[in-house]
Amino acid sequence: MTTPSLRVLGIDPGLTRCGVGVVDVAPDRSARLVHVGVVRSSPDLAIERRLRLIADGVREVVAVHQPHVVAVERVFAQHNRHSVMGTAQASGIALLVAAEFGLEAATHTPSEVKAAVTGYGSADKAQVQAMIARLLRLDSPPQPADAADALALALCHAWRRGPAAPGASALTPAQRAWADAERRARR
Amino acid sequence: MTTPSLRVLGIDPGLTRCGVGVVDVAPDRSARLVHVGVVRSSPDLAIERRLRLIADGVREVVAVHQPHVVAVERVFAQHNRHSVMGTAQASGIALLVAAEFGLEAATHTPSEVKAAVTGYGSADKAQVQAMIARLLRLDSPPQPADAADALALALCHAWRRGPAAPGASALTPAQRAWADAERRARR
Repeated sequence: MTTPSLRVLGIDPGLTRCGVGVVDVAPDRSARLVHVGVVRSSPDLAIERRLRLIADGVREVVAVHQPHVVAVERVFAQHNRHSVMGTAQASGIALLVAAEFGLEAATHTPSEVKAAVTGYGSADKAQVQAMIARLLRLDSPPQPADAADALALALCHAWRRGPAAPGASALTPAQRAWADAERRARR
Repeated sequence: MTTPSLRVLGIDPGLTRCGVGVVDVAPDRSARLVHVGVVRSSPDLAIERRLRLIADGVREVVAVHQPHVVAVERVFAQHNRHSVMGTAQASGIALLVAAEFGLEAATHTPSEVKAAVTGYGSADKAQVQAMIARLLRLDSPPQPADAADALALALCHAWRRGPAAPGASALTPAQRAWADAERRARR
């Protein structure tokens, strides 16, 4: 019998560069790189056009790679960067696209993501990149470099989600098969 | 010859209540109410489903009322309200829908909007509501009450936009006819 794996799309939202990474995670928690890339929009364009480019780019990744679930980095107001509103808007677009494809979406904080892949919630970018290369058995860090965060999000999501809690939202058949297989692998 | 008017959709973004208001503004700056309403999403739903409800609700308003342009309230990080990220995400959805319909979108700050309809950038909600009723020649303040902000945004947009500056983005034929007529009315 083939072991089912969970395919997760991780999205590191941004207006100028929106990282997208797809991984397959097996019940034994080993992971395989499926796709990594960046959806770009030029700062010269009007905001509504930029958001449309991001929506179209994310839709294409979902259509081509058919993830089971989408994980998006959670954006905080207190980051108070000049770009935080644009980042929040891009995250809204990513979540909308998930819903349009009937997919469940989840958000994780940057420190949850860093802790999941490096064991340390304040790890720096290089450390995250190095661990992503190791965990996905890549010969070199994934390119483009800053899309490593999207892959880290996807891994974080697959690893953090335990078996569905009673009352949690219903799993799709693929998710349920994966959760069951993961439970068996843990014994 | 019929005077062309500019039809503006104003959107006051929010996750739980997203105000939408459509007005026709004539070249002499008089305005007529076309539609006012609120797109709602329940706080009990997952964020991606809420954003989808908002997208679908705004799409319906655009499809039915066919505005020439969309005006969205600008959201600031420093508002630092608990809900500011959700508001930013909803504004991103509103801007995306404009782009999907090939419409130009603009953002205006709350104080620009208040100044446009009351003459005072720090006017309170009741003052804005009262002026909207007066400007649109309504017998009573528009219902639901908090959708008055969406109508104020739409009026603000129509009144603030002067004739297109050289090098500005191209106007649609309807917008150009309106801008030309407005220039004539000003003489």
